[in-house]
Amino acid sequence: MPVITGFDIYDVRFPTSQSADGSDAMNKDADYSAAYIVVRTDDPEMFGCGFTFTIGRGNEICAAAMERRALPLVGRDAQDLCAAPGTTYRELKSDSQLRWLGPDKGVEHLALGAVMNAVWDMAARSAGLPLWKLLVTMTPEQLVDAADLTYLSDALTREEALQILTAMEPTRAERVEELERTGYPCYTTSAGWLGYSDDKLRRLCQEAVDAGYRHIKLKVGGSREDDRRRLAIARDVIGPDANLMIDANQVWDVPEAITRVQELAEFRPLWIEEPTSPDDILGHAAIRQAVHPIGVATGEHGMNRVLFKQLFQSGAIDYCQLDACRLASVNEVLAVQLMAAKFGIPVCPHAGGVGLCELVQHLSIFDYVAVSADLTGRVTEFVDHLHEHFTDPCLVTNGAYVLPAKPGYSAEMLQSSLNEFAFPYGTFWAATPKGKEEQQRLAQRNGAPAVFASVSGGQQR
Amino acid sequence: MPVITGFDIYDVRFPTSQSADGSDAMNKDADYSAAYIVVRTDDPEMFGCGFTFTIGRGNEICAAAMERRALPLVGRDAQDLCAAPGTTYRELKSDSQLRWLGPDKGVEHLALGAVMNAVWDMAARSAGLPLWKLLVTMTPEQLVDAADLTYLSDALTREEALQILTAMEPTRAERVEELERTGYPCYTTSAGWLGYSDDKLRRLCQEAVDAGYRHIKLKVGGSREDDRRRLAIARDVIGPDANLMIDANQVWDVPEAITRVQELAEFRPLWIEEPTSPDDILGHAAIRQAVHPIGVATGEHGMNRVLFKQLFQSGAIDYCQLDACRLASVNEVLAVQLMAAKFGIPVCPHAGGVGLCELVQHLSIFDYVAVSADLTGRVTEFVDHLHEHFTDPCLVTNGAYVLPAKPGYSAEMLQSSLNEFAFPYGTFWAATPKGKEEQQRLAQRNGAPAVFASVSGGQQR
Repeated sequence: MPVITGFDIYDVRFPTSQSADGSDAMNKDADYSAAYIVVRTDDPEMFGCGFTFTIGRGNEICAAAMERRALPLVGRDAQDLCAAPGTTYRELKSDSQLRWLGPDKGVEHLALGAVMNAVWDMAARSAGLPLWKLLVTMTPEQLVDAADLTYLSDALTREEALQILTAMEPTRAERVEELERTGYPCYTTSAGWLGYSDDKLRRLCQEAVDAGYRHIKLKVGGSREDDRRRLAIARDVIGPDANLMIDANQVWDVPEAITRVQELAEFRPLWIEEPTSPDDILGHAAIRQAVHPIGVATGEHGMNRVLFKQLFQSGAIDYCQLDACRLASVNEVLAVQLMAAKFGIPVCPHAGGVGLCELVQHLSIFDYVAVSADLTGRVTEFVDHLHEHFTDPCLVTNGAYVLPAKPGYSAEMLQSSLNEFAFPYGTFWAATPKGKEEQQRLAQRNGAPAVFASVSGGQQR
Repeated sequence: MPVITGFDIYDVRFPTSQSADGSDAMNKDADYSAAYIVVRTDDPEMFGCGFTFTIGRGNEICAAAMERRALPLVGRDAQDLCAAPGTTYRELKSDSQLRWLGPDKGVEHLALGAVMNAVWDMAARSAGLPLWKLLVTMTPEQLVDAADLTYLSDALTREEALQILTAMEPTRAERVEELERTGYPCYTTSAGWLGYSDDKLRRLCQEAVDAGYRHIKLKVGGSREDDRRRLAIARDVIGPDANLMIDANQVWDVPEAITRVQELAEFRPLWIEEPTSPDDILGHAAIRQAVHPIGVATGEHGMNRVLFKQLFQSGAIDYCQLDACRLASVNEVLAVQLMAAKFGIPVCPHAGGVGLCELVQHLSIFDYVAVSADLTGRVTEFVDHLHEHFTDPCLVTNGAYVLPAKPGYSAEMLQSSLNEFAFPYGTFWAATPKGKEEQQRLAQRNGAPAVFASVSGGQQR
């Protein structure tokens, strides 16, 4: 059996702030980044890749936290870890000293998710299956064992979770067949970043319509006039029947959110996304009541399953936009998907960033096949950038994700991309003022190489 | 005017796991730790000390995050930063890339709090006043400008905050005089750690009664039998009239918490503390309703002001146990104190750990003098350990904190303690297996000295 011999962690950053890709009312200069880990075994064919997504500074903090989270894997039997991903997750999570720094939130939780993403990638590679298919082969009991149901029993018991999965099990194959024909429906945010000019907005909206999208999302939350002008352009291009979503990226207080959204009602948005603080369950419930029939959506900053539990319990949202990296990997995603199914809330995962599309396609396919069996109101985000850095990039045609076919969680980045964009020593950053400044800062402490942290050890066979 | 020339950050850990001090149902082997920063200026008399409290592993992650948070201070005018602590806070907090890693929670938020604690310490030193007295000299407008009211307007407007402070302003001096006579009431947790034997529990309860305490807190959440036996011992020693509080440190789900607390009702606990996940607002509300007249308390893991807002809005708690380091320093504490006053919830800050008692005494004194003007139901935690590492340790007599008199936030640690307990190179740790193992790990990367990070720069006068 292969043994985990160590891991490499990379602080990878892409200079997206140069083109205003990803700009919104809260995040004006994001450098889309990934704190990325490759878990190695003594079998060169068996490894696992995982990451968390950040927007620049602080990516190195996540990388440091991932190192600490991954240390207990070294020296362990890889098959054991992959065969019982729930046990592996609970063991990594059980460090009570690290728990103090959350619990279940912020940097430590992102780090746990990144490391477990690598474990799930390794599990899928080891099974020779894309992750969604590995999940589809698991029994209801295995899936519930993998899920993190801690603190959820007042909303979802283990028995209820089993019932949901068991009821859908006999018809899984039909839905796999259906999705292999149709793909999983998605929408695009590529058109609507706040930093884009009106002309660029109009052109990109038209391109999205031409590419078959029926859902288009725009960033709002700048000035009132800008919001109205941009929504008018988008509605003009996409026509009265297509779906237009808006996203404020948390810039408003609750009363302000209500007023600002009501002012945009004439453009008939399908949903307002992140109208206020992502932690404000009661605030989202109040906004939802006030802006009906406009829906309320949130989740990309939904910190953990306990937050989602309360969003469901209080009727605060119409759409659950869980994030593959904000939650602690598949283990916590499963719990949220199961709760969403019980409460009848469609899951429309957040994506974009670096590699989030690659991950969430697996989660959405599994959700439809084994949990929800429903596509009503469900679209998964798609943003068309940075896919070229992955060995198994997602593929979207006619507004739908094509089912991934290669083994793994589509999480592996190209070595050439790591060499170029590792911060600050990669070839791209080494030539920039930002990279040079960071190198100077680090040089005061140590001579860190392109690899943020490289740990070796563990018993050899 | 003095200029910030740099800062030193220390990863300080005390080997408390050796004596089971601090042991509870969730945290069995805590090494009480502080990620500690000293902000330096070109005037050797002007500096600021701050820290966040952790329980061991991961303290280095907080230290790394603090370095990133503090970098914008270097080269700045110290008096400017101290004169407008709200502006300083908002500037440090405004880094949208670091915000992504929270927002307002986890490691990044702890780091912001630690750095701002140092700024407030410097502001108080610069004014030649203990922090509580600096706050008491500030006008309602200055205090509201310093407070972080973001996302709170549906519960507390700026005008309401001003009204609360203005109403109490004319009588501040009377309450200062009162507290200078009586001290600020506290309770002790020193007796009730879960790892202590029954004999030790009985002896410590008796000592607490003899020392004048009328409130005693016990850890629960182990086995049913242990909980009942330990509560019986404590009630036997302290008598029927003294207050007995219990603390489950988040080990229960909501339904379990209700059952377990109801089973302990005969011992008449004043409150059940942390019955479940600290993020579960609706869960705390359900527990409170079910276990009445036993009160519900939480807050040491209360991640930010938005969580406390909802705990208040939903009637989820009887006691607000805010933490001086979990919240982002005085700026966010002010907001929570003001909301608590509006909603009529007594604030009984969490303390213990490393240096938390030193900090919260200032916050409680200010709360009574300028915000609540009420001592009903209010006691601040006190745990009698690790005070010997501070230059201005708190002093408790007759169950009350004596008002601190030295300039600053009582946050400065002795250089000798840093030299001994800096992890892993301090003289204590260097001689332990734990310290040697960590040295070996770090040596693979760099030759970090006792100072975790030492940054220099900024313009000289």
